[in-house]
Amino acid sequence: MVDVVREGSVVRITMNRVARRNALSAEHLTELLEAFREAGSSDAAGIVLAADGPVFSAGHDFTDVHARDEEGVRQLLELCTVLMKTIQSVPQVVIARVQGLATAAGCQLVASCDLAVASLDAGFALPGGKAGWFCHTPAVPVARSVGRKRLMEMVLTGDVVDAATAVEWGLINRAVPAGELDAAVDELLARATRGSRASKAVGKRTIYAQLDRPEAEAYDIALAVMAETSQSPSAKEGRASFLEKRSPVWPD
Amino acid sequence: MVDVVREGSVVRITMNRVARRNALSAEHLTELLEAFREAGSSDAAGIVLAADGPVFSAGHDFTDVHARDEEGVRQLLELCTVLMKTIQSVPQVVIARVQGLATAAGCQLVASCDLAVASLDAGFALPGGKAGWFCHTPAVPVARSVGRKRLMEMVLTGDVVDAATAVEWGLINRAVPAGELDAAVDELLARATRGSRASKAVGKRTIYAQLDRPEAEAYDIALAVMAETSQSPSAKEGRASFLEKRSPVWPD
Amino acid sequence: MVDVVREGSVVRITMNRVARRNALSAEHLTELLEAFREAGSSDAAGIVLAADGPVFSAGHDFTDVHARDEEGVRQLLELCTVLMKTIQSVPQVVIARVQGLATAAGCQLVASCDLAVASLDAGFALPGGKAGWFCHTPAVPVARSVGRKRLMEMVLTGDVVDAATAVEWGLINRAVPAGELDAAVDELLARATRGSRASKAVGKRTIYAQLDRPEAEAYDIALAVMAETSQSPSAKEGRASFLEKRSPVWPD
Repeated sequence: MVDVVREGSVVRITMNRVARRNALSAEHLTELLEAFREAGSSDAAGIVLAADGPVFSAGHDFTDVHARDEEGVRQLLELCTVLMKTIQSVPQVVIARVQGLATAAGCQLVASCDLAVASLDAGFALPGGKAGWFCHTPAVPVARSVGRKRLMEMVLTGDVVDAATAVEWGLINRAVPAGELDAAVDELLARATRGSRASKAVGKRTIYAQLDRPEAEAYDIALAVMAETSQSPSAKEGRASFLEKRSPVWPD
Repeated sequence: MVDVVREGSVVRITMNRVARRNALSAEHLTELLEAFREAGSSDAAGIVLAADGPVFSAGHDFTDVHARDEEGVRQLLELCTVLMKTIQSVPQVVIARVQGLATAAGCQLVASCDLAVASLDAGFALPGGKAGWFCHTPAVPVARSVGRKRLMEMVLTGDVVDAATAVEWGLINRAVPAGELDAAVDELLARATRGSRASKAVGKRTIYAQLDRPEAEAYDIALAVMAETSQSPSAKEGRASFLEKRSPVWPD
Repeated sequence: MVDVVREGSVVRITMNRVARRNALSAEHLTELLEAFREAGSSDAAGIVLAADGPVFSAGHDFTDVHARDEEGVRQLLELCTVLMKTIQSVPQVVIARVQGLATAAGCQLVASCDLAVASLDAGFALPGGKAGWFCHTPAVPVARSVGRKRLMEMVLTGDVVDAATAVEWGLINRAVPAGELDAAVDELLARATRGSRASKAVGKRTIYAQLDRPEAEAYDIALAVMAETSQSPSAKEGRASFLEKRSPVWPD
């Protein structure tokens, strides 16, 4: 249900559970988690998270949820949360390619990727708020991407935010016509994966570590890492090539 | 000075201290607090905070403040802060209907509501910064709605931000012509109050609990609540109605 | 290399290391820090941080960095961080006047100022991400000004964000044609420096103290300060002049 293809320095992970609107059953979450872990331990520079079919992902699979008791649901949500955190912890740049509706945990997937590009037809929603089970965990990364009033509108109304509005609100980076989606994803990912991979991997990890903290704490975290990495092969090559006016050759 | 009207599932709380520009004297704050507490303990689904007259609210009443010593002012500010926190803690969706200028603690009221819709004639300001007593507490929820540079511009200049700009900055959800204000408030509130009230009440509380925290802490909070609520009557009805392809009947 | 000019109530600090693109060597950082400390202890109301030449600042000086070991780089970064924190801790309103490219620690300077106005020709970048040494510390204040997806795009691609986009994202307050830059800086700074300086100084300090914290903690901080300052000469004059319908005369 998850296709994984390596193309050059990029791993494309594609949800292919089309008949179930790419709903995140435990099995599908596990496949995605394994795909991200494998890609994460590879030498790839970037990962594209894509989906087949008219829907990006409808979120949790109610058939799966409905059969579980509280402890069973907790385990499902823990698995889902591990996937979201793994997307942030892999050393690669992760970009979401959103071709359709991304709702609930599907919207959380988009918010958890480092970058996101969507078709203008795509939409984003946290629909639990207009139903019976609130989108508590999907709201976590969405709350850290959009402003508070926009978050409240999304979680309370449950309605779909179109892709152009999602760009305005900062939930995604770009919205383009459907025919230009792959090109836009590739273009942004190519720019986001230049330079030293080792340096960028430490950078991504440090960004997520310092976010949402008081600024002084964030400086403590960032300064320690920036001093440590100053003597790395890539940092030295970067400075040497700049001072010698030549193109750098990244050692990693 | 505060009119409270119940219309269907909505409680309308209207500041009606027009001659004093709806300034927030201790008496007025107390009336508002009582109105919110009463509405909060009712079975209403939504609360509209509105105001009569050309001004939404001018903030603290200087006549009241001027007669107080430091301890007296502290008590006044504590009362004001309890009101702001109560707006966030009531289980209902609270929407501000802003027809005119909202300044200082009046702007804080708008920032503290879950949602806000304003007339295009409305304006928002934290004027203490251009006077002698800085808007320290009003800046707290405003800082959590708009970006840092916009916040600094508001608190340092004290100047009025017009409604269209307030939408761009995320301080409010919508700005519409004055004649369409009630319709826009009603429309957004109707969408924001659909679904299970019990579920939404837990949702609102959990959102405010997880905001402004490192993401891992927010996940701990949200995941525990989402697992607990998975077996609630409304969550079960939501899943059952979806799987049975029928309209849900919320048990609350 | 740093020109300091006092004009009325404003101190203009101008980076003038044009041949080195205003790169932040230890010497240049020290001069800037001394200039900010001196201006900070003066009776000025505002500080303009400007730069000569086509580039605002290119960030750290690689010649300087390259000669240092890890401990030496740590000391350089600590000096740089002290400068950024000093910009936030001086009692004056600090505004960046950005006439050209502001990259890496140069972009951090802009993000650290209370306000920022740029020429439409200006640009902003955190280029370490596309090279060998990630912009860990510059990302700290940038992360607190723009949304998460925009931050990730800046740090991962390293590409230049133009001034108009920087306004949309909240990284700066205004972008104007080059010929109007000084007027726009002066106009915003004039509005931002009205009122009691003592009150505004406490206000600025309290804003930075309450940011990035859970709202209840922020209220504790802000409420204590707002009660304490309620009996200050400027707060009393503000209320008295308002109630007596006369212009205030700020005692500081």
